Amino acid sequence: MAKVYEVVKVFGTVGSPFAKRVQIALELKGVQYTFFEEDLRNKSELLLKYNPIHKKVPVLVHNEKALVESLVILEYIDEVWGSDQPILPQQPYHKALARFWSKFIDDKYMPAITKAAFSANKEEREKGSEETVEALEHLENELKDKFFGGESIGVVDIAAGHIAFWLPAIEEAVGLKLLTSDKFPKLHKWGHEYTNHPAVKKNLPQRERLVAFFKARYASIITASK
Amino acid sequence: MAKVYEVVKVFGTVGSPFAKRVQIALELKGVQYTFFEEDLRNKSELLLKYNPIHKKVPVLVHNEKALVESLVILEYIDEVWGSDQPILPQQPYHKALARFWSKFIDDKYMPAITKAAFSANKEEREKGSEETVEALEHLENELKDKFFGGESIGVVDIAAGHIAFWLPAIEEAVGLKLLTSDKFPKLHKWGHEYTNHPAVKKNLPQRERLVAFFKARYASIITASK
Repeated sequence: MAKVYEVVKVFGTVGSPFAKRVQIALELKGVQYTFFEEDLRNKSELLLKYNPIHKKVPVLVHNEKALVESLVILEYIDEVWGSDQPILPQQPYHKALARFWSKFIDDKYMPAITKAAFSANKEEREKGSEETVEALEHLENELKDKFFGGESIGVVDIAAGHIAFWLPAIEEAVGLKLLTSDKFPKLHKWGHEYTNHPAVKKNLPQRERLVAFFKARYASIITASK
Repeated sequence: MAKVYEVVKVFGTVGSPFAKRVQIALELKGVQYTFFEEDLRNKSELLLKYNPIHKKVPVLVHNEKALVESLVILEYIDEVWGSDQPILPQQPYHKALARFWSKFIDDKYMPAITKAAFSANKEEREKGSEETVEALEHLENELKDKFFGGESIGVVDIAAGHIAFWLPAIEEAVGLKLLTSDKFPKLHKWGHEYTNHPAVKKNLPQRERLVAFFKARYASIITASK
């Protein structure tokens, strides 16, 4: 638990799946923090000070020490705020697998769904859809318990949160259907469990606003490519 | 130290900077292992069995448990084979910074140098050169001691090994000069220290073979793009 003299700040946007990872992890650990909403078209001086290299959200600032990259931050949170609610497995091999799958989500799934939904080029979007389905198949195959982390939420669940909440909103906004319940029954069930977990549920953005945001993004790309 | 009943295998290629990371880390820990040289144009059944998702080197197999992704493997090695020669810092904030910089090398420097040297398109190569220099500037700025890890080699040094050995070979092969000693005096000095460290030196590939390999790669790209 956070000690009373600790000052914890999160810089993010309300819709950012990466910032949500950090917020959900802090929630699981019972750490109080102040949230700073960033306007990504007009970034704050503080964001640029704390993340001069990537200039991106999320940033975690813990007693004036700044940390960036959501997966790096999740490991830090797990190390600093105790192991009553561990986010990473304790056993080195299981820990390595959790790191592998979290990295897989960022390296394979994330670029694939962005390509599938928001590429200007139709062939690129179709290729992105194929790559998204392939990434989802690997994750469906890997999911053995209630959560990727077993009976409780772990780092892979938090990393995969996009699939549970953002992906369905993107599908609605751009008219895709990739995460079908017949093809991905385990991911479907998991998504329901995950988004209804108290630490997750209270940290999700409004679905209607997210769908509207993705609709506008899609429309601007389609218009620009005509 | 490796216990006598432990079986450690590394699947790699002699020229792979990612496989070398694993070999150098095992060397630092004094772990005995068997090296399996892969032909990437004709991958072995074992490689495909151990890394069915990415089908890439390196793979570390420890008592029949397979691990992939070099940075994930480095953390595993550090956790399993004791802390006499720690690769990661112990303090969570310093550990997070080390993870950040290792990830920075893989996410920013590595794609940039590949683009700079081996893109078919001249403008792309020039853009890659700019991005490489920008990444090197961040690393030059970050280097405060003998090594990124302080007085001894740490995870960031091992991750950055490409800059010390592979980059000069690429520069020679394709006629680039990015890592100049006037612009990057600290990285130059570090590169010399790093490549002369006993655990590193004995694990480096032959420079002439590497240069020849990169020359052939460059020539095939230039020929194909004409």
